[in-house]
Amino acid sequence: MKFKAEIDVMPQDALLDPQGKAVANGLKNIGLSAVENVRVGKHVTLLIDAADKTAAEAIADEACRKLLANPVMEAYRFTLVEQA
Amino acid sequence: MKFKAEIDVMPQDALLDPQGKAVANGLKNIGLSAVENVRVGKHVTLLIDAADKTAAEAIADEACRKLLANPVMEAYRFTLVEQA
Repeated sequence: MKFKAEIDVMPQDALLDPQGKAVANGLKNIGLSAVENVRVGKHVTLLIDAADKTAAEAIADEACRKLLANPVMEAYRFTLVEQA
Repeated sequence: MKFKAEIDVMPQDALLDPQGKAVANGLKNIGLSAVENVRVGKHVTLLIDAADKTAAEAIADEACRKLLANPVMEAYRFTLVEQA
């Protein structure tokens, strides 16, 4: 079965996020001052070929831990949807 | 009211995504060969202060169009959740 994984990798809440700060300033400069608390991370989508959802979850988790996220600075989460 | 926006900005489907290609190769190199079709984009979260959900949607859409996404190369989508 194929599963589509939607992965978000975001800077840890405890850390400053200079890119988010820059976006917040940019939004203020174009007149959108109702926006605050901007954080910028990565969004990764991928297709996983696995026997069942548990196996696909294990693969997605390993991909996040070993390649996509730096656990010192980033937190990740993902959702899996079976493809038709 | 405050709304939390979760925004995904992804490369257009019609375009090659070299960063996704690099991640796919990296995953194969660490033994995760069941993964394909990797695409890498941005995930942005922000808090919007607005009178109602329609107003918050308008602000989020403007932020995407004017600052966060380059419409030539990227597509965006977002969800809004009211904060307690």
